[in-house]
Amino acid sequence: MSRPEPSHTLPDRSIYLRRESKVRSYCRTMPRQFVKARGPWMYDDQGGRYLDFLSGCSTLNYGHNHPVLKQALIEHIQNDGIAHGLDLHTQAKAEFLHTFDELILEPRGLDYVAMFPGPTGTNAVEAALKLARKVTGRNLVIAFTNGFHGMTLGSLACTGNAAKRQGAGVPLDNVVHEPYDGYHGQGIDTAELLERRLTDGSSGLDAPAAILVETVQGEGGLNVASAAWLRKIAALAKRHGALLIIDDIQAGCGRTGGFFSFEEAGIEPDIVTLAKSLSGLGLPFALTLFRRELDIWNPGEHNGTFRGNNHAFVTATAALRHFWSDGEFAGEVSRRGEYLAERLERMAEAHGLETRGRGMMRGIVLPNGELAAKVTAACFDRGLIIETSGADDEVVKVLAPLNIDDEIFAKGLDIVEECVANVMSEYVEASLEVTK
Amino acid sequence: MSRPEPSHTLPDRSIYLRRESKVRSYCRTMPRQFVKARGPWMYDDQGGRYLDFLSGCSTLNYGHNHPVLKQALIEHIQNDGIAHGLDLHTQAKAEFLHTFDELILEPRGLDYVAMFPGPTGTNAVEAALKLARKVTGRNLVIAFTNGFHGMTLGSLACTGNAAKRQGAGVPLDNVVHEPYDGYHGQGIDTAELLERRLTDGSSGLDAPAAILVETVQGEGGLNVASAAWLRKIAALAKRHGALLIIDDIQAGCGRTGGFFSFEEAGIEPDIVTLAKSLSGLGLPFALTLFRRELDIWNPGEHNGTFRGNNHAFVTATAALRHFWSDGEFAGEVSRRGEYLAERLERMAEAHGLETRGRGMMRGIVLPNGELAAKVTAACFDRGLIIETSGADDEVVKVLAPLNIDDEIFAKGLDIVEECVANVMSEYVEASLEVTK
Amino acid sequence: MSRPEPSHTLPDRSIYLRRESKVRSYCRTMPRQFVKARGPWMYDDQGGRYLDFLSGCSTLNYGHNHPVLKQALIEHIQNDGIAHGLDLHTQAKAEFLHTFDELILEPRGLDYVAMFPGPTGTNAVEAALKLARKVTGRNLVIAFTNGFHGMTLGSLACTGNAAKRQGAGVPLDNVVHEPYDGYHGQGIDTAELLERRLTDGSSGLDAPAAILVETVQGEGGLNVASAAWLRKIAALAKRHGALLIIDDIQAGCGRTGGFFSFEEAGIEPDIVTLAKSLSGLGLPFALTLFRRELDIWNPGEHNGTFRGNNHAFVTATAALRHFWSDGEFAGEVSRRGEYLAERLERMAEAHGLETRGRGMMRGIVLPNGELAAKVTAACFDRGLIIETSGADDEVVKVLAPLNIDDEIFAKGLDIVEECVANVMSEYVEASLEVTK
Amino acid sequence: MSRPEPSHTLPDRSIYLRRESKVRSYCRTMPRQFVKARGPWMYDDQGGRYLDFLSGCSTLNYGHNHPVLKQALIEHIQNDGIAHGLDLHTQAKAEFLHTFDELILEPRGLDYVAMFPGPTGTNAVEAALKLARKVTGRNLVIAFTNGFHGMTLGSLACTGNAAKRQGAGVPLDNVVHEPYDGYHGQGIDTAELLERRLTDGSSGLDAPAAILVETVQGEGGLNVASAAWLRKIAALAKRHGALLIIDDIQAGCGRTGGFFSFEEAGIEPDIVTLAKSLSGLGLPFALTLFRRELDIWNPGEHNGTFRGNNHAFVTATAALRHFWSDGEFAGEVSRRGEYLAERLERMAEAHGLETRGRGMMRGIVLPNGELAAKVTAACFDRGLIIETSGADDEVVKVLAPLNIDDEIFAKGLDIVEECVANVMSEYVEASLEVTK
Repeated sequence: MSRPEPSHTLPDRSIYLRRESKVRSYCRTMPRQFVKARGPWMYDDQGGRYLDFLSGCSTLNYGHNHPVLKQALIEHIQNDGIAHGLDLHTQAKAEFLHTFDELILEPRGLDYVAMFPGPTGTNAVEAALKLARKVTGRNLVIAFTNGFHGMTLGSLACTGNAAKRQGAGVPLDNVVHEPYDGYHGQGIDTAELLERRLTDGSSGLDAPAAILVETVQGEGGLNVASAAWLRKIAALAKRHGALLIIDDIQAGCGRTGGFFSFEEAGIEPDIVTLAKSLSGLGLPFALTLFRRELDIWNPGEHNGTFRGNNHAFVTATAALRHFWSDGEFAGEVSRRGEYLAERLERMAEAHGLETRGRGMMRGIVLPNGELAAKVTAACFDRGLIIETSGADDEVVKVLAPLNIDDEIFAKGLDIVEECVANVMSEYVEASLEVTK
Repeated sequence: MSRPEPSHTLPDRSIYLRRESKVRSYCRTMPRQFVKARGPWMYDDQGGRYLDFLSGCSTLNYGHNHPVLKQALIEHIQNDGIAHGLDLHTQAKAEFLHTFDELILEPRGLDYVAMFPGPTGTNAVEAALKLARKVTGRNLVIAFTNGFHGMTLGSLACTGNAAKRQGAGVPLDNVVHEPYDGYHGQGIDTAELLERRLTDGSSGLDAPAAILVETVQGEGGLNVASAAWLRKIAALAKRHGALLIIDDIQAGCGRTGGFFSFEEAGIEPDIVTLAKSLSGLGLPFALTLFRRELDIWNPGEHNGTFRGNNHAFVTATAALRHFWSDGEFAGEVSRRGEYLAERLERMAEAHGLETRGRGMMRGIVLPNGELAAKVTAACFDRGLIIETSGADDEVVKVLAPLNIDDEIFAKGLDIVEECVANVMSEYVEASLEVTK
Repeated sequence: MSRPEPSHTLPDRSIYLRRESKVRSYCRTMPRQFVKARGPWMYDDQGGRYLDFLSGCSTLNYGHNHPVLKQALIEHIQNDGIAHGLDLHTQAKAEFLHTFDELILEPRGLDYVAMFPGPTGTNAVEAALKLARKVTGRNLVIAFTNGFHGMTLGSLACTGNAAKRQGAGVPLDNVVHEPYDGYHGQGIDTAELLERRLTDGSSGLDAPAAILVETVQGEGGLNVASAAWLRKIAALAKRHGALLIIDDIQAGCGRTGGFFSFEEAGIEPDIVTLAKSLSGLGLPFALTLFRRELDIWNPGEHNGTFRGNNHAFVTATAALRHFWSDGEFAGEVSRRGEYLAERLERMAEAHGLETRGRGMMRGIVLPNGELAAKVTAACFDRGLIIETSGADDEVVKVLAPLNIDDEIFAKGLDIVEECVANVMSEYVEASLEVTK
Repeated sequence: MSRPEPSHTLPDRSIYLRRESKVRSYCRTMPRQFVKARGPWMYDDQGGRYLDFLSGCSTLNYGHNHPVLKQALIEHIQNDGIAHGLDLHTQAKAEFLHTFDELILEPRGLDYVAMFPGPTGTNAVEAALKLARKVTGRNLVIAFTNGFHGMTLGSLACTGNAAKRQGAGVPLDNVVHEPYDGYHGQGIDTAELLERRLTDGSSGLDAPAAILVETVQGEGGLNVASAAWLRKIAALAKRHGALLIIDDIQAGCGRTGGFFSFEEAGIEPDIVTLAKSLSGLGLPFALTLFRRELDIWNPGEHNGTFRGNNHAFVTATAALRHFWSDGEFAGEVSRRGEYLAERLERMAEAHGLETRGRGMMRGIVLPNGELAAKVTAACFDRGLIIETSGADDEVVKVLAPLNIDDEIFAKGLDIVEECVANVMSEYVEASLEVTK
């Protein structure tokens, strides 16, 4: 792997300082200017090459610029295919719907209808919340500790992170956060705590319109809900007249193996949100899926200018056909996920740490966020792009492309292993110093 | 213009009925399946050709698939240019910022910083609302009657339309709607009404964080705020410690002549939102611009997975260079806007109707929504795509590409003229029948 | 009238400084300690006597300690009559209901049922708001500029005063404030402005559960709604499916002549709130009255520990029997109100000022709040208790007992006249000084 | 005890049906008309006599019409003492403050200032909530499962009961309900659950302005917070910058022994609310007490017409002097509470039931609300007024006067014992029948 040049040779990037808001974030810890990318590799304007274990936060599950997807998109553009179609019928949309029906819904026996709510994950969540409230006539939504669902006001109310929430500038109401699976430790079944309060007519917890949950909390620290817990939550939602919404924006599209992350648990959510890797190429595209009986929308009751992003329909169709025509890809992902688990487990054991996650979204929990940041910085210096998540950003999170070559994957994990080892031994030494 | 075939010969589109939510809307009145588009023309799968006077609700100001933009995008993709970049620095982003700085901000003396809030208009509005509340420490936002600002919860609270608002399922708070310019007729200066209440410590109108306004209300019926009124609103916002947010998502990017629709009024908003035609090709892209002093965001305090849609940066840069390098394009738009005004004025006079709008966003007000729908349906039968807006959908709205060929433009307007004439004479006859 | 002693001879009142919250207010401008009161007179602990033109903000419409009411209460207590009865049936309650039915409701043809919502005005308003929202299934309540309805969260949201609103500490939602009659000057009919927005499906004004209005705004500056305007508001409430709530807490119980202040306008509100002078003796007592068809409460769905304040039932019954058995008292109040109007008019003319109000709640508008405070301070020095109201506290407000002796009333008004004259001539002189 | 006559001989009470709202509740299960009351006895208009184990829900801790209080009040009225004083200084108020200072605050070393927020409990709570939000600049308040704090909008949001909450008609926001002590059973320390979420920056639980808690939940089913738990809550409130508000409206004024119910736990709340038995005679009176440093109110920032209910000041002063001049009364209450505990424990053991409560607020938990209602109905038939509480109204609650004669107390408890026995043996028989 070519090491990037030190930053003093970088070209002038003053345009960012002059014209881009301070809200920018990733570019602060990865101060390079990227020019192209292919598969698991990103390239900067100084000839540096980086292995991408961030994958656009799971938006690039098939790597950058996959040739099959690229080709489909270029052909579409060259033929003057529709780019922007509002919610008009277009060939690209029909093909996407047919393919999604044939390869995803039908084989899984899921009788969902699809809503194009606007092309971002938060659009999908906002539409899901609206629908749940409209269907039930209730206001309250139950979300979970460490959940992340988006940054527009409705979704933000469901997001747990205090720093994000503070940005709202108004109280975030009509949502409460309950403890996620395992939040209070092994002895306490948080689904039972919730059941108790929903059953009690004097608990102060109003009857909810929906329960909104991720099966694995990507931003929240790779916390995993067990299949048993998910089934309990599904059952209690039903019992209390609430809709179950699975936010599968980060964990879906194959990240945990199956196309949907909830397949393993054997549950059928009332509503599902998808986005991130749906287009396959990283183009903005989101879906809200729901049981046919819930489709009580009036025409145009929710909309969005870019809900017909046909470029994304084209690449999404190509991705579904290429990766999801049979079970092979899911099997490969599971295999790679197992390998990832083993490697992380080994690192964890070596330093008395914990691992977290499921499938190809796993990480290792450093003692604190500062150490995790040291690990990712060290990785970046060695040409590996990797990020943290969790309440304290304490989890170093591996989000490699799902179709990454085994050897490259191994080399990337070697870098992680080396950096964790360095950071941890420095940390242990410092601790010993203190206790001397 | 080739007339589209009657619908009974259309191919099977049952996939939409089977798998797409009832929330779909435009496809109901325009039941064709579109396959490609170029310039002002759209083509369906039966060989039908349509002149597009809707332009993706002003998202396609330069027409469909403009060859210069297409070419730039294809090259980018072929070179494995970054597609999805979170908020990392990328070449495409730098070039966009440089170009926007050079061609748009600098010449107008606007010292704004740019925030990439996620790629849809509602993302831009939500970010603007957050920032205004954060900066001022206040909750309340003043929006206006007939305003449209998006469908996520924060933006929806600012939107006037009752049918859209009802979809929220929760009370839409922290926003009040004041009467827009002219709302209460000629005798009443609504800026003065607002000033009176803001000045009065017992009016019940809390000190606002922001005043959010469109210079022309695209969805609300093409109502136009006069320059004088806008200046009054800008002044009173300042006087009362509120930020002025111009939502230029539909009226900006040249639709009214200048790049920003507020240039004519000589005001400098504190915050500006842009989206729709920003990418030029119809790709999802939005910006929130604001005065440098307001940039108090913490890193990542607002974000969005698709805020780095580099394909859109590429086409946006190409569009800026092609259309906005000098004043010629703006001049052309103004000239075409004048022509449009004359044509509509003539129709209006012929039938005792009113016109509304500014620049290249103008329309004719039918006596009611039903008649307007008849006009647009008749136009569609003649191969013209055109839509309505307004509280009762009573305004037939011309949103042609800004660079449309004069002759084609004239022919399209001929269709509108003919359809308005037919519908109105039928209507007048029916009225006479009744009064007989 | 005996002049009160100067304050340096006052006894130690450090207990207030030591143990009473700074939230106290009236005692700051009237720094005496009162020991007893009878009719229109209050007495302090230094032998000072004060004529009371404040009457507990219209809570003491029959003066202090009216002998008939006193006697009834003492007998009740001596006989071990129920003091506190929750909402149990008690003799005192039955007698009150019978009397209220016979003397107030029946003669006016009002088929209201009575709810005892807790003994304070704000309890009555909160109950009214709940009921209106429950009946209509809507959230929004329309209140008016300068309205005052109480300080608990639901009522406070309906109150216009910014200083009071700020105390809430949370956004006050589900209420908007519309301009009251005359708010925007003579040329503008504010009922028409409201009608326009309620009719418009895109105005952003949601369909309201209720319109809440005072016929005369006691705290808001003695603004008077015309009978015609009230009728328009009543009609538009009906047309738009909203309930009309008249808050008659300050203007009712005879203050404007009739028992209810809305009788003159010939309207029949859906809901009426009463409190303040209802008990007659100044004891806590409030009622929420509403049309029989609206009585869809579940048992105990609203309650309050002190909703059965039987002492107040006893004095209220005695007051109704003594003052409201025939029309004589109302006639007397009207006569006195006319006299008050003349006196104030004369003062106003002498100094180029305005008067405001109706019946026995009238005042004179000083150029600003500072001058009004000088007037009331000067009055207090002369043994007259009188207060201000209005957004800027600029209205000197006469709220004398309704049954005040004519001669005493005249003497009190002489003091007001004298003080207004002194303050105004000083003010005019100072103005001349400035302009020299 | 004389048995009341059967209801068919009752006089006409149609006035209630005709003119009182269906919201009435207690009178439904106790369909008598009461005329007088003294000590623990109430008398109806048919000569029936009832022993009162409800005591106005703890508003009549010293029994009805205590002669010392009566005498003080009659004298005050006869002397034309102020009845209604807004927040003017009055002799009655000064005497109350002096007495409260001397007998309650000083001996306990509590440096509180007193606010007269309006005369009902919910006024006191609303003022406490406002102050906590104002002091901290935060919105959220943490309340607890089964908490009851009042029925106006701010307090209602803190109340747990679903039937009460539904009456609001709007979402009740800015409050969350956490599990009370013991809510999730013995193994789970709910203070720790709360601590965990407050400490976690990604829990979705915003930093709270206040934690609002009752030491014993009177309406919620006589649940008791342990001293250890209260100390933990006090500590975590402090740690997280939240104010601790003890709502002592039902449990205070001696009901649990000490004047304040929190004395035993050795905590010093930031804010305390008092009402119910504060006046001693059942007159409306409430106080909000808080640490001197928190007194940042602006004058009049919270108010209420009846905040100066001087009759209540007079009886409250008399009650304090009579009962709280030394520790004797508290000792007597504790002794009686022990006796009550024993009696209830005996009943509970006999039927395999549970008891709940502390001091003189204790009850026995029936298997369900229906059985509890049978017990109270049977008691009423035997001349004993007693009520239920709890989420399902399943707790038969003894709220006898604190100064009740030992023999009468015993006889009343005999009735309870007999009725519980009858109801339980019928229930057990019926159960056996079913299982046969």
